[in-house]
Amino acid sequence: MGDNNNFKYLSNIDSPKDLRKLKVEELPKVCDELRKDIIEELSVNPGHLASSLGVVELTVALHYVFDTPYDRIVWDVGHQAYGHKILTGRRDKFCTNRKLHGIKPFPHPYESEYDTFCCGHASNSISAALGMAVAAKLNNDSRQVVAVIGDGAMSGGLAFEGINNTASTPNDMLIVLNDNNMSIDNSVGGMRKYLLQLTTNSTYNDLRYKISRKLFDIGLLNEKRRKGLIRFNNSVKSVLSRQQNIFEGMDIRYFGPTDGNDVVELVRILNAIKDMKGPKILHIHTKKGKGYAPAEENATIWHAPGKFDYESGERIVSKDDKPKPPKFQDVFGLTLLELAQKNPKIVGVTPAMPTGCSMNIMMKALPERVFDVGIAEGHAVTFSGGMAKDGLMPFCNIYSSFMQRAYDNIIHDVATMNLDMVLCLDRAGIVGEDGPTHHGAFDLAFLRPIPNLTIASPYNEPELRNMMFTAQKQGKGPFVIRYPRGCGSVVDWRVDFEEIPVGKGRKLKDGKDVAVLSLGPIGIEAGKAIAIAELKALNKNAAEPLHIAHYDMRFLKPIDTELLHEVGRNFKKVVTIEDGVISGGLGSAVLEFFADNGYDIDVKRIGIPDAFVEHGTVAELRKICKMDAESIAEVLL
Amino acid sequence: MGDNNNFKYLSNIDSPKDLRKLKVEELPKVCDELRKDIIEELSVNPGHLASSLGVVELTVALHYVFDTPYDRIVWDVGHQAYGHKILTGRRDKFCTNRKLHGIKPFPHPYESEYDTFCCGHASNSISAALGMAVAAKLNNDSRQVVAVIGDGAMSGGLAFEGINNTASTPNDMLIVLNDNNMSIDNSVGGMRKYLLQLTTNSTYNDLRYKISRKLFDIGLLNEKRRKGLIRFNNSVKSVLSRQQNIFEGMDIRYFGPTDGNDVVELVRILNAIKDMKGPKILHIHTKKGKGYAPAEENATIWHAPGKFDYESGERIVSKDDKPKPPKFQDVFGLTLLELAQKNPKIVGVTPAMPTGCSMNIMMKALPERVFDVGIAEGHAVTFSGGMAKDGLMPFCNIYSSFMQRAYDNIIHDVATMNLDMVLCLDRAGIVGEDGPTHHGAFDLAFLRPIPNLTIASPYNEPELRNMMFTAQKQGKGPFVIRYPRGCGSVVDWRVDFEEIPVGKGRKLKDGKDVAVLSLGPIGIEAGKAIAIAELKALNKNAAEPLHIAHYDMRFLKPIDTELLHEVGRNFKKVVTIEDGVISGGLGSAVLEFFADNGYDIDVKRIGIPDAFVEHGTVAELRKICKMDAESIAEVLL
Repeated sequence: MGDNNNFKYLSNIDSPKDLRKLKVEELPKVCDELRKDIIEELSVNPGHLASSLGVVELTVALHYVFDTPYDRIVWDVGHQAYGHKILTGRRDKFCTNRKLHGIKPFPHPYESEYDTFCCGHASNSISAALGMAVAAKLNNDSRQVVAVIGDGAMSGGLAFEGINNTASTPNDMLIVLNDNNMSIDNSVGGMRKYLLQLTTNSTYNDLRYKISRKLFDIGLLNEKRRKGLIRFNNSVKSVLSRQQNIFEGMDIRYFGPTDGNDVVELVRILNAIKDMKGPKILHIHTKKGKGYAPAEENATIWHAPGKFDYESGERIVSKDDKPKPPKFQDVFGLTLLELAQKNPKIVGVTPAMPTGCSMNIMMKALPERVFDVGIAEGHAVTFSGGMAKDGLMPFCNIYSSFMQRAYDNIIHDVATMNLDMVLCLDRAGIVGEDGPTHHGAFDLAFLRPIPNLTIASPYNEPELRNMMFTAQKQGKGPFVIRYPRGCGSVVDWRVDFEEIPVGKGRKLKDGKDVAVLSLGPIGIEAGKAIAIAELKALNKNAAEPLHIAHYDMRFLKPIDTELLHEVGRNFKKVVTIEDGVISGGLGSAVLEFFADNGYDIDVKRIGIPDAFVEHGTVAELRKICKMDAESIAEVLL
Repeated sequence: MGDNNNFKYLSNIDSPKDLRKLKVEELPKVCDELRKDIIEELSVNPGHLASSLGVVELTVALHYVFDTPYDRIVWDVGHQAYGHKILTGRRDKFCTNRKLHGIKPFPHPYESEYDTFCCGHASNSISAALGMAVAAKLNNDSRQVVAVIGDGAMSGGLAFEGINNTASTPNDMLIVLNDNNMSIDNSVGGMRKYLLQLTTNSTYNDLRYKISRKLFDIGLLNEKRRKGLIRFNNSVKSVLSRQQNIFEGMDIRYFGPTDGNDVVELVRILNAIKDMKGPKILHIHTKKGKGYAPAEENATIWHAPGKFDYESGERIVSKDDKPKPPKFQDVFGLTLLELAQKNPKIVGVTPAMPTGCSMNIMMKALPERVFDVGIAEGHAVTFSGGMAKDGLMPFCNIYSSFMQRAYDNIIHDVATMNLDMVLCLDRAGIVGEDGPTHHGAFDLAFLRPIPNLTIASPYNEPELRNMMFTAQKQGKGPFVIRYPRGCGSVVDWRVDFEEIPVGKGRKLKDGKDVAVLSLGPIGIEAGKAIAIAELKALNKNAAEPLHIAHYDMRFLKPIDTELLHEVGRNFKKVVTIEDGVISGGLGSAVLEFFADNGYDIDVKRIGIPDAFVEHGTVAELRKICKMDAESIAEVLL
């Protein structure tokens, strides 16, 4: 946090009320300070930089023009809301952003009355804001509701459903379409193209605006004739610009595009349109990373850059030269390319996450075989299903928590037809600082009930590699591979490919007193726990050592019944460990097996509790969830 | 099935190959016969009538022009595909449609190579077809791919995601937009309005078409200049029609609208455009119910009319005058209105199912408080979340199997904020003739892991009523009520409202040998099973009668721990019964509780097995799943 002396304006803004006392001419200075504050803070306390820089002017203008928190601003994806937090009373606490018990990574109503809705996943703002706008109408409140959505999020089906319904439901909502040509990577899709072309002549926009205000003023036009006006405008505009406007085609009034990094102009326009009746869209152009040269140049890298040097713009990378285990996502990305080079049927599908899941590696080498479909998880899965149906072998990679958006697609468009394809769930389990909306907590539980699925979770990097090798062979049906965020444990991961028998686990360690059944890399934590527990037992009574067996289940489904029978016959106590919610996943599957087969066994289940886990480091959160080695050891004893 | 003598053409069409031998002029006669065949068959063997009648000409034209099954026709929602089935070798078997072991209610690749994709849920055709079109390109196949989507399905976000990606992915797909202004109820939304306005002058369309063909022919235009052509056309068209075209705005070539019930014209257009490169949309207008007057007049009622008299057009309603228990959906609809009249905060939300879930009752009485958002399940939930956030009490009603489409919305847009609102899941459990895509099999398992949810399933109609009464009181968080298709068991269901304690089950019957724990109306089947088992035990050995206790759990979450402790202390054998998939639901919850609390109990779980259950009557399917009273009794003994 910068020295307050350097922040003449910010240091006097405790809430948007203070902001609204300023003159319009002072707002550019507020923007400068806000931008500087964000950059300084993020340089030492990593977070999402580029999006927040792009919307500094918009944030200031919205809180200046609208009477927040009475009026509602609904952010779409909270990455961009750091300026919003700083202006709404959280400047002191901003240094705790994303830290355990600190302020939340994404805006959330539990934290502030200025945070109107949960905004971790893209594309929900229009639907939520429409709900609020309708509630205002039914409650006879005069409040204004503004949804702020990026062009990237506009490719999501939910955003379209929201706009479609906005057009036919009485409401006075304003949608600000913040167009920076980016998701985290570059935006894609027809809507994107469309928006790019929508650069209507600003002279015309100005003219049209002035004429229509005049016509209103002298009473020639009124709200009743609004639709006629829109259609009239459409025609004129189409002629002048040789372009269409999707939104006006739906009878939503359209303004723009305008420079979203010009705060004075934004204030002028927002004031001019805020009281107009009916739904409206203001289309603004902003620059992601605006005001910080390195971030402007490469907004994808600077989306969430980690620590960096403010002055030089150098990202601070750990200087440790020791070879380190790779990120799971890179094992995925590199292995995918390797497999694709051998198997011409393999194609890659990602919903706007080529960099995040490292599919950009294959994209670079085999561009015609990788499809970035935009933020559109449902389509990603169904589109993969269509390709699988006609003989390709898609690897569709979606973060675990975003796969929640493709649940029906997995069931209806993949599993009912038992299609041969691979669904890779990156960021499965606890992800850390991104918090509750991003933890991949539910996938094991929501996928297990689906018939025909194979569900695997590799123990480490070589296993991920071999799982992918196994999954791409024809005849295996839909094959799910889930793996966590971050790095694994094996430096020399690039082993020769080896097929893994589907539905078979393996014994990692012998034992006779307790059997530990783990799934995925949490098994490494389990291994540590076993060592701790055995040592403690030995220290307590050397004559009665504890021998704990450890099984890596590898597959949640089909579960290894042979292995479970072996465990059932030989153990009286079993502990299951999974990096997923405690209800419905591995632990439940094991209980079901023992009950169905008449084994009388004391089973303890370890996993994510039935609550939304907050943000913090993975280690901190595992401790809270009692999934760290020490806590697990307690259960083993 | 009509007498073959009356079907000169149809009786000679064993596959589309036979159809393609006919002259174009003969096709109207084929259409007449096809239409007659469908109506006659459906009059005695109930199914989906109106949609299939509307697309008779399209079906004939597509199979005539395209080389099916090599070329792919991807139907969106298989309601409409009866003509397709009859033309593709299933005419003899059509009398078994929707019956156990008969042909499937919706097209499915397992049944026929002409059925290219699973199509029980709306809006997936474009995504799936795009996958096939891309596969054709990568495989160097010259196959054509056609998606047929209705205007109702176009409101689904998945359809938009598909179109958005179609615009930016190299492919030559044809999308037929079958516009009849209907989902099952009337279509709604901005896209709907938009399509209605899209009635461009046909002279212009003709002219434009002729000019562009000519320009192609003489080489002035070519595929490389296609985009320029589209934009040129857009401008001309906008001027002439004073309208925009969304699709051309995305660089998808647009043709239409044209009369989709004119088979000769359809064949002409399809032949003209099928070999054009790049994605194309053909917009046709059809009449749902076309050719059968009663169905044309009221397509909602005639969507799936049950049996009827062909000649008179009278629907055949059972003549039994005895008072009967109501449908659960009507209990929902009537109770909702009653509650809404007392509680001004209550609003209703339905994704295109006002008739199907009986929300049309409230819609008629309080139109401004009911929102039919179109086929858009995700938006329905998030929109409800927005209203709940600002103090309204939404009842959002979505069929269980369609709620799979709003999974992330429930988690991210409702549960994370613990919003007070009600999600009603109609058609939960086995639904019967609509088959695997429509069984509400998964909801208990996929909802249970979500924190903050209350999940209830009423035993009968009065319980549904009281659950709704309970749920609408503030402070309860998100409250799920799931209930089945069809009628319940209580004639006099309109009891005085009574609040049900959340998370509390109840004992229905004392016993000491076995405890049955059931959830929802399947408990009635369980009751019968208990009587059968006790009688059998008595007949076997009168000296050792069996005393079976029966508990109605009422809530899956929070589960009644007091009740389970009581059961745990007093029983050695427990049987759980639920109308949902066996993995992850009630049975698993009970196992988890007993394991966590150290009870050593033999638990048998009864529910839908881990497989897609086929179609048939509910009674037949319950027998197959061993969920009928006789089968349950076997487990109790």
